[in-house]
Amino acid sequence: MSANLPLIYAICLIAVVAAFGFTAYLFGWVKKQPSNNRRIEYVADLIQKGANTFMRKEYTILAKFAAVAAIAIFVFLPAPIWSGAGIVPNLKMALTYIAGTVFSAIAGKIGILVATNANGRTAQAAKDGIKPAFLVGFRGGAVMGLAVVGSSLLGVLLVLLLCGDTSCVLGFSFGASSLALFAKAGGGIFTKTADVSADLVGKVELGIPEDDPRNPAVIADNVGDNVGDVAGMGADLFDSNVASMASAMVIAASLDQVTGGAINMAMVFCYAALGLLASIIGIATAKIGKDGNPTRALNSSTYVTTAVFLALTAGATLLFDGFSWRVWGASAVGLLVGVIIGIATDYFTDDSKPIVKKVAHASQSGPAFTVLSGISYGFLSSLPAMIGIAVSALAAYKLCAPLGDGYAMFGIAMAAVGMLSIVGMIISNDAYGPIVDNARGLAEMGGLGEETIAIADELDSAGNTVKAVTKGFSIGAAGLTVISLLGAYMSEVNVAAAQIGVAGITGFDILDPVVFFGMLIGAAIPAVFSAMLMLGVDRNAQRMIAEIHRQFREIRGLKEGKEGVEPQYDKCIDIATVGALRELIPAGLVAILSTLAVGFIGGVHAIGGFLMGNIISGLLLSLFMSNAGGLWDNAKKYIEAGHEGGKGSEAHKSAVVGDTVGDPFKDTAGPSLNTLITVMSLVATLFTPLIAVWHIFG
Amino acid sequence: MSANLPLIYAICLIAVVAAFGFTAYLFGWVKKQPSNNRRIEYVADLIQKGANTFMRKEYTILAKFAAVAAIAIFVFLPAPIWSGAGIVPNLKMALTYIAGTVFSAIAGKIGILVATNANGRTAQAAKDGIKPAFLVGFRGGAVMGLAVVGSSLLGVLLVLLLCGDTSCVLGFSFGASSLALFAKAGGGIFTKTADVSADLVGKVELGIPEDDPRNPAVIADNVGDNVGDVAGMGADLFDSNVASMASAMVIAASLDQVTGGAINMAMVFCYAALGLLASIIGIATAKIGKDGNPTRALNSSTYVTTAVFLALTAGATLLFDGFSWRVWGASAVGLLVGVIIGIATDYFTDDSKPIVKKVAHASQSGPAFTVLSGISYGFLSSLPAMIGIAVSALAAYKLCAPLGDGYAMFGIAMAAVGMLSIVGMIISNDAYGPIVDNARGLAEMGGLGEETIAIADELDSAGNTVKAVTKGFSIGAAGLTVISLLGAYMSEVNVAAAQIGVAGITGFDILDPVVFFGMLIGAAIPAVFSAMLMLGVDRNAQRMIAEIHRQFREIRGLKEGKEGVEPQYDKCIDIATVGALRELIPAGLVAILSTLAVGFIGGVHAIGGFLMGNIISGLLLSLFMSNAGGLWDNAKKYIEAGHEGGKGSEAHKSAVVGDTVGDPFKDTAGPSLNTLITVMSLVATLFTPLIAVWHIFG
Repeated sequence: MSANLPLIYAICLIAVVAAFGFTAYLFGWVKKQPSNNRRIEYVADLIQKGANTFMRKEYTILAKFAAVAAIAIFVFLPAPIWSGAGIVPNLKMALTYIAGTVFSAIAGKIGILVATNANGRTAQAAKDGIKPAFLVGFRGGAVMGLAVVGSSLLGVLLVLLLCGDTSCVLGFSFGASSLALFAKAGGGIFTKTADVSADLVGKVELGIPEDDPRNPAVIADNVGDNVGDVAGMGADLFDSNVASMASAMVIAASLDQVTGGAINMAMVFCYAALGLLASIIGIATAKIGKDGNPTRALNSSTYVTTAVFLALTAGATLLFDGFSWRVWGASAVGLLVGVIIGIATDYFTDDSKPIVKKVAHASQSGPAFTVLSGISYGFLSSLPAMIGIAVSALAAYKLCAPLGDGYAMFGIAMAAVGMLSIVGMIISNDAYGPIVDNARGLAEMGGLGEETIAIADELDSAGNTVKAVTKGFSIGAAGLTVISLLGAYMSEVNVAAAQIGVAGITGFDILDPVVFFGMLIGAAIPAVFSAMLMLGVDRNAQRMIAEIHRQFREIRGLKEGKEGVEPQYDKCIDIATVGALRELIPAGLVAILSTLAVGFIGGVHAIGGFLMGNIISGLLLSLFMSNAGGLWDNAKKYIEAGHEGGKGSEAHKSAVVGDTVGDPFKDTAGPSLNTLITVMSLVATLFTPLIAVWHIFG
Repeated sequence: MSANLPLIYAICLIAVVAAFGFTAYLFGWVKKQPSNNRRIEYVADLIQKGANTFMRKEYTILAKFAAVAAIAIFVFLPAPIWSGAGIVPNLKMALTYIAGTVFSAIAGKIGILVATNANGRTAQAAKDGIKPAFLVGFRGGAVMGLAVVGSSLLGVLLVLLLCGDTSCVLGFSFGASSLALFAKAGGGIFTKTADVSADLVGKVELGIPEDDPRNPAVIADNVGDNVGDVAGMGADLFDSNVASMASAMVIAASLDQVTGGAINMAMVFCYAALGLLASIIGIATAKIGKDGNPTRALNSSTYVTTAVFLALTAGATLLFDGFSWRVWGASAVGLLVGVIIGIATDYFTDDSKPIVKKVAHASQSGPAFTVLSGISYGFLSSLPAMIGIAVSALAAYKLCAPLGDGYAMFGIAMAAVGMLSIVGMIISNDAYGPIVDNARGLAEMGGLGEETIAIADELDSAGNTVKAVTKGFSIGAAGLTVISLLGAYMSEVNVAAAQIGVAGITGFDILDPVVFFGMLIGAAIPAVFSAMLMLGVDRNAQRMIAEIHRQFREIRGLKEGKEGVEPQYDKCIDIATVGALRELIPAGLVAILSTLAVGFIGGVHAIGGFLMGNIISGLLLSLFMSNAGGLWDNAKKYIEAGHEGGKGSEAHKSAVVGDTVGDPFKDTAGPSLNTLITVMSLVATLFTPLIAVWHIFG
């Protein structure tokens, strides 16, 4: 059967409509679940309002940033407005950039809307047992997952159809990723400021339980789960998904230009659409089995999605003339390696495995040993994932190289598309986490009793565990995406070189001192960026801790839990909001401006090295920080479950220190690095025409 | 004047003889200093015996390793023994390898000998004031510095003259660096095991002062200063110095082959000899000025050495026909950037600068904030050094590129030689540190009184401060050396390619998936290696802490300091020794075997990427860990000087946790990474002929 583009576009539209339809059904289902506990409603309302306030303020600032960026893009990209090519391409580029930011913002907004509706209902469903509570939490997450993936596919499709040019897709992707970078950074700083402060004063100093309503930071903590984990993560995965499609499309378009057809472009869209359909099926089948194990339910629906995707794409390869089995193999390799990375991550962070137990045991000798052993195992944990990404890139490349010139890089891009094909499922699982985390808090604050809290705890712990597997996919996919973006960058360089009449380039030699120069500086950027975010959390948390101390000191009866006495929750939310917004812009600008600075100093070769240095150190630090953070969190939970002396022991105190260090590692800096790498690659690719002409050196 | 090789060799010999003569004079001078406090003599003797025992055991194990390695080299390098080229080249290679290990071992041994003689005398000289004490400590360090540099120049010269082949110099360098890797790792684990355990039980749990003779680990701690900082560091800088000469010589030889002369080789030897002479002059002029400031005395003699070296090499360039000003410029750039990196490091780690104060202030909120802010600033501190190395490599390359094909890489190699020209001075300063650190301990244990301890403290603190500047040189030089080794590696690959009749290579393209594959895995190795060393310290310290607890529990009157009751110091020394020796071999093997594995899987291109990934992440992690460790150490000292609540405050307790985390960062893992990178580059270069023929993939 011929794989003409209109047919493939129709398949995409069917997938998008199915996703949106199912989203609407699930959202309606969640809204219909009972919600009649007044205390829970009251607190859930506070959380929703806090989250909305933060999002409104954040989006106001980001809108200004986006406006400035859009004007700069309009003036300079794809070629300076005075270069004589007319203003239409520049206008298109600026508009698609704005469209990217708007889509990304909407994705975050939808996530917040459903998460703040699902959290209270999950808590109340937990009174009836784990099965119904799981379903509410999971379906809430699925609304987010399907909405994000549906809208990313729709957005890319619309941009390409309206604009007719893959460089507009890069502009769209840049819009999405620049917003995601700020959303991740801002949300990440907000959530950890609140979490760290609430824990340190509440749990460590006063010894009151987690989520105790007397703690002034408790609402801010729950708001943080939403704005950091739900909205930030949604924007992040929206961006990864768009970037992987964009880089595959840029390469596909140049390949199709040579052969005259559109078969490669058709493959990209077809795989994306089938991935979305596979996610719908996976989500629809998710429910807790007879064993009542939520971890198994989440993982098994991930595996169902994977299998369905492989079967559907195999079917498409059989059905459509010109679809290549080699490309199918590349995307299958991507998926498989994603699973392997996930399993390796799980080994380092799961508390039923030896590593967590060793860190818990080392905690008996004091916090320094918790920190040292966690950092050491965090370093070690990077190895399997780095090998996994390296092997999958090599395998995809070798698989597709025989298809002809340029197909090898297309293979890597399709391996990334393969890994991200199940992104709908990944987001569902990831959004499930903060929903049940919130539900646990609401169950505590609503006084639903020990048994309900225990159920919420079990749901929460399953969320933490499955994160390991999904994180394997997202880090692996980011690695492959940026490699293929490097390929896209090189083809943009050659287009620009042809336009200004100089010789093109064939690669970036690490022995070229300009490449090497870029590489060393590029490698330092992820470290600098992480440092800025962590110092942001540090500064902010100091302010919030002072505020919590003030409230406990000045509000009479608060510490004793006197009836009717309530802390000033909004003061803490304000501190987290103002601080996060103050810190996010400088960190984001470092990423964009350092790329431009290296480019305008060292030229296109320096940028090539810069991106590679950035990819390498970004992946390494991201794996290290995410895994070390997860490891410390679970070591603390393991001790709290009664091992190594249990709650209140010296080991527990040490483990709390480890967890506090790990919080900004795993929820602020670590996961922002993926987005950082993507943004820098896109900045480089988009500004290539300017950098090729204007640079001092090289 | 014609720069013929015999003349240059004569200059080298003069420099070597001058260095050895001056060494002998200084050693005699140190030995003549009064030493008549019986208690100090007793303790100094314990330290010396402990150090000698460890060194003997370590060298016994390493001799076995070296024997196995020498046999492997004999069989396989430079070509398998059955390849028909005769056994003479293989025998030469194996013998030069053994010579490298022996020279390195002797360098370590001399260091221990003089350091253990100078420590007690420095303590006793401190009774007469800071000036005489400084001179004893500094001259003790200088014996080490001049002996190491003199013997490295002599060794390289002898190997080249006897062997007539630069690849034998690589073999010599590999011998030196493989031994250095194990010596650094073993010594680093020993010293931090003892230091961490002594501090945690003594200072934190029992509240007894540092270096209190009741502490069973106190002698082990002082032994650690010698075997880790003196012997390990001596072997390390011996190796860096040899490696920088070796890589410059390999490139010089191939350049000279083209032009038919020996002018480039003459330049390498001439610069090395003049660097040694400059160090002698710098050392001879070192004394404390009227202000009584030891920091200024140490730094000013470093600057004297730098200026003398620049003047001497400028003179040589004027005098000798064919010496290029461009090469002089490259080595001057190297020196200058070394100074800049040092100043930047100083900014992040000196307690009169804002960063240390910020970390000390953050400590008030608890240990998690000490750790988080230290890690963040450690990350930030990597940026200036990475930029410095990048800029110096680029500048040296651009300066020398006009000289002709291949000269650009020679420029980078000579920038490294320039940076390391003052290595004699660097080692003197570095060895001064542990000598005065020991002297402080001996003054405490010998009961020399508060005033003498205060003088020893001031000398000690100066040692910590100047370390920042010298560390700038050694990390920068390692970066430049390994880049030029990468150049040397490529020329070896092309020689091997010509021999087996395949096309040579022109570089390593980062978009080549095999290069990329190597790069990702290479980037993970420094993290894995650091983790193994730190876990080694962690495990070992747990054992030693248990032993210290046991002694305080079982030895009656020990805690109370009853007259005549002494702890069992040797038990602690044993634990540190056995543990360090058990951990060092696996970590060292990871470096060598991973290089070979990647090579035999992915071929020469994979190795190119592997080395580059390794360089990038090695430099980044080394800067991060060294600086974060120094920062925590000084933040603790800053608090102990009475700030933020002073000794015993909550901030102090937090700072002690930070310092404990920082100890293995800055003295075990961080400084071993330089050596790791060098060893891996040499393994790759030496095994090129085999890898070019035998590899699975690529």
